[in-house]
Amino acid sequence: MNKKPLILITNDDGITAPGIRNLIDVMLNIGDVVVVAPDSPQSGMGHAITINDTLYCDPVKLDPDATHKEYTCSGTPADCVKLANQQILTRKPDICVSGINHGSNSSINVIYSGTMSAAVEAGVEGIPAIGFSLLDYSHDADFEPAKKYVERITRQVLKNGLPKGIVLNVNIPKLPADKIKGTKVCRQAKAQWVEDFDKRTNPMGRDYYWLTGEFVNQDKGEDTDEWALSQGYVSIVPVQFDLTAHHFIQELNEWEG
Amino acid sequence: MNKKPLILITNDDGITAPGIRNLIDVMLNIGDVVVVAPDSPQSGMGHAITINDTLYCDPVKLDPDATHKEYTCSGTPADCVKLANQQILTRKPDICVSGINHGSNSSINVIYSGTMSAAVEAGVEGIPAIGFSLLDYSHDADFEPAKKYVERITRQVLKNGLPKGIVLNVNIPKLPADKIKGTKVCRQAKAQWVEDFDKRTNPMGRDYYWLTGEFVNQDKGEDTDEWALSQGYVSIVPVQFDLTAHHFIQELNEWEG
Repeated sequence: MNKKPLILITNDDGITAPGIRNLIDVMLNIGDVVVVAPDSPQSGMGHAITINDTLYCDPVKLDPDATHKEYTCSGTPADCVKLANQQILTRKPDICVSGINHGSNSSINVIYSGTMSAAVEAGVEGIPAIGFSLLDYSHDADFEPAKKYVERITRQVLKNGLPKGIVLNVNIPKLPADKIKGTKVCRQAKAQWVEDFDKRTNPMGRDYYWLTGEFVNQDKGEDTDEWALSQGYVSIVPVQFDLTAHHFIQELNEWEG
Repeated sequence: MNKKPLILITNDDGITAPGIRNLIDVMLNIGDVVVVAPDSPQSGMGHAITINDTLYCDPVKLDPDATHKEYTCSGTPADCVKLANQQILTRKPDICVSGINHGSNSSINVIYSGTMSAAVEAGVEGIPAIGFSLLDYSHDADFEPAKKYVERITRQVLKNGLPKGIVLNVNIPKLPADKIKGTKVCRQAKAQWVEDFDKRTNPMGRDYYWLTGEFVNQDKGEDTDEWALSQGYVSIVPVQFDLTAHHFIQELNEWEG
């Protein structure tokens, strides 16, 4: 490319999260950066959008030395992408990167993930997009080992493009740099959360619940993201938002009234 | 079946919405009904779940003559399904039905849809599930013509089952009963929202936005849900939550570092 690529950055942990600050560091090596990210954590927001409420979106300066622009938005990750494209950016970005999420978005977590919803939203709008997640929920997670892979995969997407209708879901194991074995292209493991609820009674005597749960992977395949991560690889799953189960259309057509 | 099927009902417009009241009417013809639905509208919530806040879930009696049980929940549609299965129902339901949504969930709307997120959540938990939507956003929409199709499709799913990993997205055109031509099994149309934002200034001088937009269907296929609906058919799309773009795995593997 002759000119620098324009990179839109967002996340779901909020604009001050270490994960997005590390992602910004990496992207400044690659191109021109604009950040539009939620003003507060949005984990578990799935592909929510704000349709019955107002949205605020204001410029912020978190790093006094920075020359790139950052905006903080009152909405969800998908709102951030919509607002960025329609109101903030003067041209279509060359890529949208989301994350680095504090915690896994592998397997079924993709459907609950605000990080991935931002990537999917960008994909719907025709922008190549990647969601990055590190398998470490803690605020002070070490993002250093992830950076090499984040940069490499972003450069690969800028070089090769992505087909219409596909974005990438990248998960990075919680390992020191010398223990990460490389990358694996994978399918989404057929795993799920087995819910539990912690039932309590509030001081006024009314019952309430906290969602808890255990992640259960019944999928023994060695081509899944869960397997790759368990073996020390960075997993890359191509994700589509045509949800049609094409292989079941014929059988459905044979159902009798 | 010897005994009546157990039917879990939820929605995203809230437990008092006419759409779910009509859905309950239909399901009472078919089986034993338990309703667990949001206490307020949740449209556009996508597959959000409540992980950093408490959830309330209380019994309610909206119809004094009713013999079935209803619960209202402070969470999202996906929360309702999780809570129902884990805390309220004493056995796994035979089917979960969500809706009838006031407004379309065809095409790309499936990814923003709270109605469909409830159906997908049930599917993840191994319960056959259907999301129903009527192409009429108004509160006083006429749900009568939809009822015949809602009942027929629910009975078909109870009879035939659904494969693991697949739920149904059913959309019903806004037409009088004698103008609806029947049902069509379809794929999700490749359409999108072209966003616009209505930018305003609040009384304190701060800018804010309302999300607006126009639905644009570039997909000319005659096998899509948009096409079927435009022709007066009820559209049935089998929806999967393995989002892997399997056809792109090989090409991704050929990318060079």
